[in-house]
Amino acid sequence: MADVGLVVAGPSGRMGQTLIRMIAETPGVTLCGALARPGSAAVGADCGRLAGLEPSGMAVTDDPLALPETAQAILDFTTPATTVALAALAARRGMVLVSGTTGLSPDDFSQLRKSSRHAVIVHSGNMGLGINLLAAMIRRAASSLDAEFDIEILEMHHSRKVDAPSGTALLLGQAAADGRGIDLEARADRRREGHTGAREKGHIGFAALRGGTVIGEHSVILAGEHERIEFRHKAEDRTMFARGALRAALWGLGRAPGLYSMADVLGLADF
Amino acid sequence: MADVGLVVAGPSGRMGQTLIRMIAETPGVTLCGALARPGSAAVGADCGRLAGLEPSGMAVTDDPLALPETAQAILDFTTPATTVALAALAARRGMVLVSGTTGLSPDDFSQLRKSSRHAVIVHSGNMGLGINLLAAMIRRAASSLDAEFDIEILEMHHSRKVDAPSGTALLLGQAAADGRGIDLEARADRRREGHTGAREKGHIGFAALRGGTVIGEHSVILAGEHERIEFRHKAEDRTMFARGALRAALWGLGRAPGLYSMADVLGLADF
Amino acid sequence: MADVGLVVAGPSGRMGQTLIRMIAETPGVTLCGALARPGSAAVGADCGRLAGLEPSGMAVTDDPLALPETAQAILDFTTPATTVALAALAARRGMVLVSGTTGLSPDDFSQLRKSSRHAVIVHSGNMGLGINLLAAMIRRAASSLDAEFDIEILEMHHSRKVDAPSGTALLLGQAAADGRGIDLEARADRRREGHTGAREKGHIGFAALRGGTVIGEHSVILAGEHERIEFRHKAEDRTMFARGALRAALWGLGRAPGLYSMADVLGLADF
Amino acid sequence: MADVGLVVAGPSGRMGQTLIRMIAETPGVTLCGALARPGSAAVGADCGRLAGLEPSGMAVTDDPLALPETAQAILDFTTPATTVALAALAARRGMVLVSGTTGLSPDDFSQLRKSSRHAVIVHSGNMGLGINLLAAMIRRAASSLDAEFDIEILEMHHSRKVDAPSGTALLLGQAAADGRGIDLEARADRRREGHTGAREKGHIGFAALRGGTVIGEHSVILAGEHERIEFRHKAEDRTMFARGALRAALWGLGRAPGLYSMADVLGLADF
Repeated sequence: MADVGLVVAGPSGRMGQTLIRMIAETPGVTLCGALARPGSAAVGADCGRLAGLEPSGMAVTDDPLALPETAQAILDFTTPATTVALAALAARRGMVLVSGTTGLSPDDFSQLRKSSRHAVIVHSGNMGLGINLLAAMIRRAASSLDAEFDIEILEMHHSRKVDAPSGTALLLGQAAADGRGIDLEARADRRREGHTGAREKGHIGFAALRGGTVIGEHSVILAGEHERIEFRHKAEDRTMFARGALRAALWGLGRAPGLYSMADVLGLADF
Repeated sequence: MADVGLVVAGPSGRMGQTLIRMIAETPGVTLCGALARPGSAAVGADCGRLAGLEPSGMAVTDDPLALPETAQAILDFTTPATTVALAALAARRGMVLVSGTTGLSPDDFSQLRKSSRHAVIVHSGNMGLGINLLAAMIRRAASSLDAEFDIEILEMHHSRKVDAPSGTALLLGQAAADGRGIDLEARADRRREGHTGAREKGHIGFAALRGGTVIGEHSVILAGEHERIEFRHKAEDRTMFARGALRAALWGLGRAPGLYSMADVLGLADF
Repeated sequence: MADVGLVVAGPSGRMGQTLIRMIAETPGVTLCGALARPGSAAVGADCGRLAGLEPSGMAVTDDPLALPETAQAILDFTTPATTVALAALAARRGMVLVSGTTGLSPDDFSQLRKSSRHAVIVHSGNMGLGINLLAAMIRRAASSLDAEFDIEILEMHHSRKVDAPSGTALLLGQAAADGRGIDLEARADRRREGHTGAREKGHIGFAALRGGTVIGEHSVILAGEHERIEFRHKAEDRTMFARGALRAALWGLGRAPGLYSMADVLGLADF
Repeated sequence: MADVGLVVAGPSGRMGQTLIRMIAETPGVTLCGALARPGSAAVGADCGRLAGLEPSGMAVTDDPLALPETAQAILDFTTPATTVALAALAARRGMVLVSGTTGLSPDDFSQLRKSSRHAVIVHSGNMGLGINLLAAMIRRAASSLDAEFDIEILEMHHSRKVDAPSGTALLLGQAAADGRGIDLEARADRRREGHTGAREKGHIGFAALRGGTVIGEHSVILAGEHERIEFRHKAEDRTMFARGALRAALWGLGRAPGLYSMADVLGLADF
């Protein structure tokens, strides 16, 4: 069977380079194009070299028409405007678009939905398999166990991180709130210091640790009467986002057009 | 609304006593009988005293006919023979039977199934809400993530425990094996010592820690390429089994007759 | 060899009762008196009954002169004024005083020091062996590793706790600050929320989780470049304070008069 | 102040390359030579290129006489024979030798001791700061707490590791055994499976988890009556050995000749 042909959008970005390297290491897939935005300094550069590999003989292009027939899926971690344009391209050419771009507006999403009538589009703000799996689990756990179980979310990241809680912690908190049918904003305890009073039933607590070079660790704790359940995720590096995108692309081939999430890719949409 | 009337089977056992105390503490439920096997020394004893509470004025009986009309559910952690008899009683009187009895034979189960045509019967070898929730989660996680994720199961118990791995560790391992569609016996790595060789893909590893007075901690780890997912359960005491049984009894009231599991009680049977 | 005779001060308090029960369970020690403050409702009560045990035939007294000759050590978790008085008593009678009383003023301490010229006095705001061991370890670790290692302190307690961070977390933070020779107040990061900016080198971070019935868990993390060291303590119940006090009493017998800490009892004063 | 001049032995090995990169990133130190064994294919190669950096203009040599006057310390992760020869070189030239070479025979050690009359030699089978710190802590903790605290050692490594327990787990177990004054071999419980019977007081248990790409995690647990103390170490990559070696070299400058351990470097030799 021929390899699946993949296109990397934004090949000079950190995620773009990681994707090029991962495609090179993964059997069954082949890089068959790299698409930069018009005017990018990367246009014309060798795709392999860009990613710190041996020269590939394939140059970065800014012309979608230059992509070969063999291109079946686009992997995209770029900007909302680019993502919307790539969705239209995927619809015209019947390609799969896997996009981890963040910051899309409601309007961008409605454009994505429109394109998804003719293309398989998988979009998620976090492409990691593990985090998406946990989010589905936590939603379901929060819905199965009543508010007698207190929910707490802990994360640890490296010392250079400038905000708290992490976006992933909020994503997991949102999953818990969805499971309980409550409004996260109204129930989040984001700081505990000094005289706090007893914990309020039904609230969701967040705590953040910072130190060293920790890539990212998240724990969601459901603490009940004399028993505790914990869900944890530990990232050793950032390739898990690229790995999730690759799996999403392979999952999308031959599927009915539509706008999908990573929960669909994991078979957990019915959770 | 009147309290739900509960009967405790085997009231002089450790679980029986715990159930009597928990019923006394829980609003909305009332102890309305305690059933010992004929000839038990507990017959005639005061139910409250038996559990270290104030006298309740209610005596333990060995005669099912002596149970009041208000008895709606039986909580049973006894022996297979007793459980089978209680299932028949529940069927005759239209009561709910919640049973955590272990060691039932295939024949016992077919008797339970027969009785369950006329009674709601909830049976599980482990009545804890958290463990059953985790088992469902692990089965689903093991099925969503492929064998690239290595599954490891770790447990810690007090120093007096005489076997390893724990029954709960095996229950969680079975859930993982079910999710993967593999045979646990054939794939379990139960010891690692000396020159073990590299880990075999698709196997499930077990490790046991023993020390101090630890009631019971279990972790299931799915370790993939540069990311790890962990599910943990920590028990602070043994009341979680009684708590789960109580919740199962309340869940069973007014439900269609049938043989149910704790996954049903948690709404996770479709996992 | 005759048992060591112990006196419990404040026998009707929670710690007093725990001490009475623990002495009853421990070979080699005997309760030979219980001392309440004059006017206490406990005076005259049976010591065993007070602690939920069988009657002991020994009555609580408010008269120090009524203590038998066999009394060798006093265990005291009471109030500063009582502790100061007991120290003077210990000095007059050549007894060991083990005190876990908190809230002593500088003046109280100078009285303790005065009495300690004639008595072995062990005082600590936290009598747990494990916590004191960890505190000594953390002080030393913080001094051995430079500020390239970020120090973070995490604690989890039950949902009814009304303040954060816990006293024990602050005790461990103080040990870390002592090891580094810095002022904890000036360097403590007690909340992280929103745009925090990068972590400041040399600071000590605190985070608090609340939920369920957790007795108390503390972690101190030293996070460096690509490696992390963690010290953890988990309490399963509150008897560890009584256990530590008992060990301190046995340690103090026959020792030279002086004011000692739990670090001395553990042989870690030279850390 | 002039940079400290460092020599890397075995520059083409994995540790050699890591050391060259780390020296390049670290202010205050400069690579001033790289020494390969005679006949090595690396002789003549550019040191920077060998480590994946820009060309350094400095060639690998196999002639110790070619090392410049500015060379103050040698970093060595090679073979016993090479290490013994480097120790003699360090003695002749008054240099510091930091060696993480494993597998030295008693005879090799006596040669090292001889050379250490004229040179500062730091040797350890594990150069990590964190592991050596923990080992010292654990030895002391095991000596402070009696055998009422059960000691358990847990480690997790990637799926390709072929033996168990890890060398580091054994090093930590040895530290615990030293603290207790017991023979590790006679007291180690290396497997628990099936009917094990109750845990024996005074034994040290080992358990191993394998999975994914975990670099190395170690926990030592002291589990007592109702409290637990844990020491943990997590490695994110293998640079911690190079980092420890660098710190050892800086520590050794200007110190009295002698054979030192990492405990000396950490100021923990008196533990």
